[in-house]
Amino acid sequence: MVRGGVTAPRGFRAAAARAGLRSGPGPDVALIVSEAGPVPTAATFTTNRLRAAPVELSMRSLRASKGTAAAVIANAGCANAGTGAPGLDDARAVRALVAKRIGLPNRFVVTCSTGLIGSRLGVEKIASVLPALEPGGGREAGDAVARAIMTTDTVPKQAAVEVELGRGRTVRIGGMAKGSGMIHPQMATMLAFLTTDAPLGPGVLRETLRSAVDRTFNQVTVDGDPSTNDTVLLMAGGAAGGRELGGAALARFAEGLGTVCRSLAEQVAADGEGAQHRIDVSVGGARDDREARLVARAVASSSLVKSAVHGADPNWGRIAAAAGRSGARLDPDRLRVRIGPLTVYDGAPLAFDERAASRALRGRIVEIGLDLRLGDGSGMAWGCDLSAEYVAINSEYRT
Amino acid sequence: MVRGGVTAPRGFRAAAARAGLRSGPGPDVALIVSEAGPVPTAATFTTNRLRAAPVELSMRSLRASKGTAAAVIANAGCANAGTGAPGLDDARAVRALVAKRIGLPNRFVVTCSTGLIGSRLGVEKIASVLPALEPGGGREAGDAVARAIMTTDTVPKQAAVEVELGRGRTVRIGGMAKGSGMIHPQMATMLAFLTTDAPLGPGVLRETLRSAVDRTFNQVTVDGDPSTNDTVLLMAGGAAGGRELGGAALARFAEGLGTVCRSLAEQVAADGEGAQHRIDVSVGGARDDREARLVARAVASSSLVKSAVHGADPNWGRIAAAAGRSGARLDPDRLRVRIGPLTVYDGAPLAFDERAASRALRGRIVEIGLDLRLGDGSGMAWGCDLSAEYVAINSEYRT
Repeated sequence: MVRGGVTAPRGFRAAAARAGLRSGPGPDVALIVSEAGPVPTAATFTTNRLRAAPVELSMRSLRASKGTAAAVIANAGCANAGTGAPGLDDARAVRALVAKRIGLPNRFVVTCSTGLIGSRLGVEKIASVLPALEPGGGREAGDAVARAIMTTDTVPKQAAVEVELGRGRTVRIGGMAKGSGMIHPQMATMLAFLTTDAPLGPGVLRETLRSAVDRTFNQVTVDGDPSTNDTVLLMAGGAAGGRELGGAALARFAEGLGTVCRSLAEQVAADGEGAQHRIDVSVGGARDDREARLVARAVASSSLVKSAVHGADPNWGRIAAAAGRSGARLDPDRLRVRIGPLTVYDGAPLAFDERAASRALRGRIVEIGLDLRLGDGSGMAWGCDLSAEYVAINSEYRT
Repeated sequence: MVRGGVTAPRGFRAAAARAGLRSGPGPDVALIVSEAGPVPTAATFTTNRLRAAPVELSMRSLRASKGTAAAVIANAGCANAGTGAPGLDDARAVRALVAKRIGLPNRFVVTCSTGLIGSRLGVEKIASVLPALEPGGGREAGDAVARAIMTTDTVPKQAAVEVELGRGRTVRIGGMAKGSGMIHPQMATMLAFLTTDAPLGPGVLRETLRSAVDRTFNQVTVDGDPSTNDTVLLMAGGAAGGRELGGAALARFAEGLGTVCRSLAEQVAADGEGAQHRIDVSVGGARDDREARLVARAVASSSLVKSAVHGADPNWGRIAAAAGRSGARLDPDRLRVRIGPLTVYDGAPLAFDERAASRALRGRIVEIGLDLRLGDGSGMAWGCDLSAEYVAINSEYRT
């Protein structure tokens, strides 16, 4: 890992400003720009059928631009979701403003929003701050945009790596994410923006991102409610030079991308609203990786498991029961369950040191392991405990 | 509806006793017996792959008996789940005790358990109370068994109807259920036992029960964690006499069964742990009934919707977003959302009286309606609000 976020790779600049779209201090608009103009850009969007207007528009832009983009504009304070045709017009207006600012056609701009569902976007507020935005490089600019997309997040989330491709070639991958913080009056959204200076074509980029997202961001769960605005985006600027990556170099790149995505996913889980613990669930021995991820996600998203972790209760029955309802094949007689370092179930309940298990549940990071002993599939999921604070945060009156 | 539960139909007797399987006062073992010996019996069991021993054994018994049974034995205080081969032996021992008591082969006895996962069943405690159990008829006996399967349930749950089949024929359907109460040191289980004096063959009985369960019990959600022991069982004693039901008479029977199941399902939802409100979600206009139920269940199980109801927050965005991620087809431009009597979204946000909507959310029963306007499919789901008490109840230390 190296320090920094989206500006860690060469070829990207960023800037943030306060447009006043949400209450509270600090910037709420973020702009990321590729110095080379349109570059290969892959994205995965929410599967929620109530897609926000900026998601809808970004999907169209990326189709029209054949998977390339030159800029990303993101705002906090308003999700621009459930807003119908007027909302789509608002997203278009913001896209046009940014396109004009960078002197390129509309289709090269990706738009993202997070905040309350159903309220209209303050287009004029964004218009009023755009002209003054001067995207810059370096850590400071990266920090600024990472902070601009925060809502109830308690910390900005960034990660970056330098990958040695062999023969002295190195590329960087950087990223930032917005966690499932929830705030009166807002709705959780997961946004993650990734950049790299590696030379990669749109097709390879898309496949590599999809694979990394499936293993990382799609395995984060705070409350089981996929948002209307979820977006993960990767821009490959190619500033590192050289031929497009393939073979062993591509594999190393994919590994580095996985490291950055996983770090951001872990940061999002740890900062779930009301959370005191991050819960890391590792599953091995599944029939395949997909089934392992199903089991890990079922355990990490179980309200009962989350409540038990909150109370430091080594209630392995809830872990096993959550695994049992995941949809993956599972044989109770073969199953092994681990809480921290302690194996508590091995085809049958084991006697274990309950106090030691309870201690393992009091750490900032709680590790739960399952071995299904059916095959070679493995996977992880990241979650957080369920606290009374979660309920308090989310039952506050909206307006 | 008529008063009573499993003993409301002719031909069934019941008795309860305290074996001391759980702490707290009151009976914890329930026995239901068919006066006519083995009668057609249909059951639906948990889909959790970590099936409890009594579930596993009951599935085998019902297969061996070709879908007939003469007695059901149920206990609270111990789920006998995650207990491996010794647990299966324990369930077998209890089954043999009951079979001996009623003088019939083992295969005619169904066994059910609810309580902590992973602990062994106190077979000797059950053995010590069985000889004294004298199953009787009437409301008192029905009440006694309904109370014997309670854990943190705050009220026993019973329902019964008398169905006019035409030409002066009437049959009765009665039932009792155990809610998703959760208690230190227990795990939620939904158990429901239904009886009828209608004459019905095993095949028709199974289909009729499956259909009623899909529309009622399977649409109840308290925390999205299907238990290892869930069981719904329907015994058809035939004491009402006459030919096996078919045609219009069967349709009326199915309607009556739906009424009993729905009443029990509503009672279970209302008594969810820590709940102050029952949430009734009605969905219309889906492509088919299955998709309507998917949407209803997604809304009723959303932690965000549940928290919003808890705080009387008319946050329709969360309702629409939950519908959007249900897996059912949905067009945001056609969607209508209703909170109580108020339409709050109709293809786009509507201005509405927020105070009136908030009032609608303060009732003991909160009604949420969605019209997808895509087809004729309709369905319902029942849930409850998410409160800090839920977290408190479920984070208590297990031992």
